Amino acid sequence: MSTFTLDSRLAADGLTVGDTRLCRLLLMNDARYPWCILVPRRPQVREIYELPAEDRQRLLEESVVLGRAMMDVFGGDKLNVAALGNQVPQLHLHHVVRRIGDPAWPAPVWGVGRARRYTDDETMAVLSRLKRALPADL
Amino acid sequence: MSTFTLDSRLAADGLTVGDTRLCRLLLMNDARYPWCILVPRRPQVREIYELPAEDRQRLLEESVVLGRAMMDVFGGDKLNVAALGNQVPQLHLHHVVRRIGDPAWPAPVWGVGRARRYTDDETMAVLSRLKRALPADL
Repeated sequence: MSTFTLDSRLAADGLTVGDTRLCRLLLMNDARYPWCILVPRRPQVREIYELPAEDRQRLLEESVVLGRAMMDVFGGDKLNVAALGNQVPQLHLHHVVRRIGDPAWPAPVWGVGRARRYTDDETMAVLSRLKRALPADL
Repeated sequence: MSTFTLDSRLAADGLTVGDTRLCRLLLMNDARYPWCILVPRRPQVREIYELPAEDRQRLLEESVVLGRAMMDVFGGDKLNVAALGNQVPQLHLHHVVRRIGDPAWPAPVWGVGRARRYTDDETMAVLSRLKRALPADL
């Protein structure tokens, strides 16, 4: 049985927030949108339907708690939740807080323009806000 | 308490497959990709986290059964599952079977080119294949 290793592209594009019960939680290093990714720590899974039922339910629960917290903390008009994986097959679930008038609105965010990296101060601030909003036992 | 009415834009873009226990199931009228949408028949819900827990679990279950069946029947390389809603706020969950080399690959399908409508014969064939692949009690 192999062990979980985070895909190198996700590792390069994301800042590690921490581990939930099921997932590695990443903050995309793109200050244009509050954008988090849940990556189930299960090796060689590409599709949600490939997860065992209990893992699927846990992923849904973590997604719901995370998505609601992100909308509360960052104040958005719409949450986008998506499992795509055309470029990075390792199963990962995007959560993007969208605001009317943001750089991609109303289109999806993928492939639009270039990421604006957080400054160090911004990184500390956004991670702090996010962690305070999430339950400790997520 | 208001009743469920399918958003007019979803109604215009989709062919009705039928109702599952929770959702209206639509086939997007775009022959470029096998593309289905689950719309929970609950009024005034925009986000997955706004659904009651039992509805969320049912949506996940229907999504998993539908997604696996679509990949089996239509033969794809990757399934894209997404709740976006920037243009149509009524909660709806996209399921798109992606193939390497399809018209949008590897980008997401939204906003890429124009839909190619199914012919009547194609509509009957794809609906028939889809319905045979789905359990009767979905």
